[in-house]
Amino acid sequence: MTFEEARAQFPVLERLAYLNAGTNGPLARSTTAAIVDAVERDAREGRSGTEWFERVIELRDEARRGLAAVIRVEPELLALTDSTSRGCTIAIAGLGLTPEDEIVITDQEHFGLLGPVHASGARVVVTAGDEDAILAAVTPRTRLIATSHVLWTTGRKPELERVRDAGVPLLVDGAQSSGAIPVDASGFDFYTISPQKWLCGPDQTGGLYVRDPERLRIATPSYFAAASYEPTGVFVPKPGAARFDSGWTSAPALSGLVAALATHPEWRYTRSAEMAARCRELLAGVVEVVTPPRHSTLVSFRPPGDPTELVAHLHERGVVVRELPGRNLVRAAVGWWTNKDDLQRLADGLRG
Amino acid sequence: MTFEEARAQFPVLERLAYLNAGTNGPLARSTTAAIVDAVERDAREGRSGTEWFERVIELRDEARRGLAAVIRVEPELLALTDSTSRGCTIAIAGLGLTPEDEIVITDQEHFGLLGPVHASGARVVVTAGDEDAILAAVTPRTRLIATSHVLWTTGRKPELERVRDAGVPLLVDGAQSSGAIPVDASGFDFYTISPQKWLCGPDQTGGLYVRDPERLRIATPSYFAAASYEPTGVFVPKPGAARFDSGWTSAPALSGLVAALATHPEWRYTRSAEMAARCRELLAGVVEVVTPPRHSTLVSFRPPGDPTELVAHLHERGVVVRELPGRNLVRAAVGWWTNKDDLQRLADGLRG
Repeated sequence: MTFEEARAQFPVLERLAYLNAGTNGPLARSTTAAIVDAVERDAREGRSGTEWFERVIELRDEARRGLAAVIRVEPELLALTDSTSRGCTIAIAGLGLTPEDEIVITDQEHFGLLGPVHASGARVVVTAGDEDAILAAVTPRTRLIATSHVLWTTGRKPELERVRDAGVPLLVDGAQSSGAIPVDASGFDFYTISPQKWLCGPDQTGGLYVRDPERLRIATPSYFAAASYEPTGVFVPKPGAARFDSGWTSAPALSGLVAALATHPEWRYTRSAEMAARCRELLAGVVEVVTPPRHSTLVSFRPPGDPTELVAHLHERGVVVRELPGRNLVRAAVGWWTNKDDLQRLADGLRG
Repeated sequence: MTFEEARAQFPVLERLAYLNAGTNGPLARSTTAAIVDAVERDAREGRSGTEWFERVIELRDEARRGLAAVIRVEPELLALTDSTSRGCTIAIAGLGLTPEDEIVITDQEHFGLLGPVHASGARVVVTAGDEDAILAAVTPRTRLIATSHVLWTTGRKPELERVRDAGVPLLVDGAQSSGAIPVDASGFDFYTISPQKWLCGPDQTGGLYVRDPERLRIATPSYFAAASYEPTGVFVPKPGAARFDSGWTSAPALSGLVAALATHPEWRYTRSAEMAARCRELLAGVVEVVTPPRHSTLVSFRPPGDPTELVAHLHERGVVVRELPGRNLVRAAVGWWTNKDDLQRLADGLRG
């Protein structure tokens, strides 16, 4: 697949310099076609019956295998969720923490992680967003380190390989990494995937890697948790991480996800890294870039004036980036589908 | 809207005697069109930007108002969820129960309710599926009664008005009642809606009524829980039940839900009750019907032979009903869209 062929899959790129896969990726024609086909089939044939149900279960298996391959883990250790927030809740609530326990997080996390961390009841220790600060915050009471592979604000990529060596369970929010940079999640305890971002999948899909499913309590069981159950709700869990599947995913969303996973060329990671480097170079002459080089596919920068006004100004010129509220930062998200013209439009827009 | 016009909205009814809204309702053309429009718009314009986000928030408000109206409660007390299972988890986990506490349930509940009940850690007391048995099981330790407005197995409708008088918090699984029979949920503490069933909405949508949001802990906070938050995750909840919104719902699903809520004629409840009565009459001569008259829009019956084989046999004849595993029951679900011919096809299919 040539670059032009690969890029031509996405209608939104025809008109916009779409630089916000950090919120939601572009949708390919094949993805929307798969969703539309599934919706119309559901309407025509009904959402019922053995054949229909078996097809949905097959789609679940296919989606599970596809998401597991993205982060190089065994499909048996991958739960299907509907968001990274849900994945964080499943992992954190499952640990059954008390106020005697501590969770270490950084000051650069999304509320999708912060909310479940707070709800756990554990003492929360907040550090700066780098590996040294995280390691320095670990105490004998630390039961979990919860942070992001790529920080959604600064685009920084903490060295989690070093953090892992602390020997404390590690939950990784993979929202800005899975599908954006090469990931091998097998060395972590928990790792989330947000397919609607860098994998260009539908909303309300997701994945959670659980290294040792037997050791995590099922705190929020869905219909899919049980292989069998008693009238009191006591149940025998399904094997592997499927016990943590967070609930029903629609046939259209599953069909779209499977289609989306097939849209990515082999050269995706090298190309997106190249374009992120180019984006940094172009912007460095115009604004203060805060993302370090070679960390991620995010390029966050301090706007010369009001960030809200800047994002609106760029949007009027067909350039889509986002503000990071409360941090006086604007963020461009660069994918393998980005071309030089997209980046030039952003640089031109920043000049006036 | 005449009956024929109203029924003609649903493509699946052209070919099948579709009698399984208890699993998933039929999808109207206007609903699938709204979903398809939203998917294609997302692909064309991108899932990003102030305008897009504001449109999704407006759709959420519209869906919230629509679902609240179905069960006659204030929209401010209605949380948007993605399933009845999720609603049960939000309510039950939020109570913060211990092994000293008791939850009373019946032996006729779905795992979507049983799972969260078990995960709560409270002692679970299981009774028969009727109001007298429930009331007899209440002790000073009872912190919650959790049951269904219409039992998904027998189709029986316990007198929850009487159960309510026990003065114990009451969680009502409304999967087989909301949209099927007239409901006023305002007298209960928690009430769930499964729009994909009787409201003919898309999958991965839902509602949870919370009578007193201030008194329920937010055990599984989503992105939507917080009006503002601190770096530790400590947050100020949104006003009302919106703090319990369970997560992001896609623009296509919200668009489909809003469209689905507009497909129902004023006479829906009288017509579906009439057709359910007619279904009972027709089947009573052929099989043992277990659903009492005038209870619900479900008609459950004991099949003469193997239930799995019967459901498959009926499916081959274009009649869609479902088996209730482990209970030796088959269930027909009768909607306002059902006609006499659908019922006759079921009766004929049962005869051989």
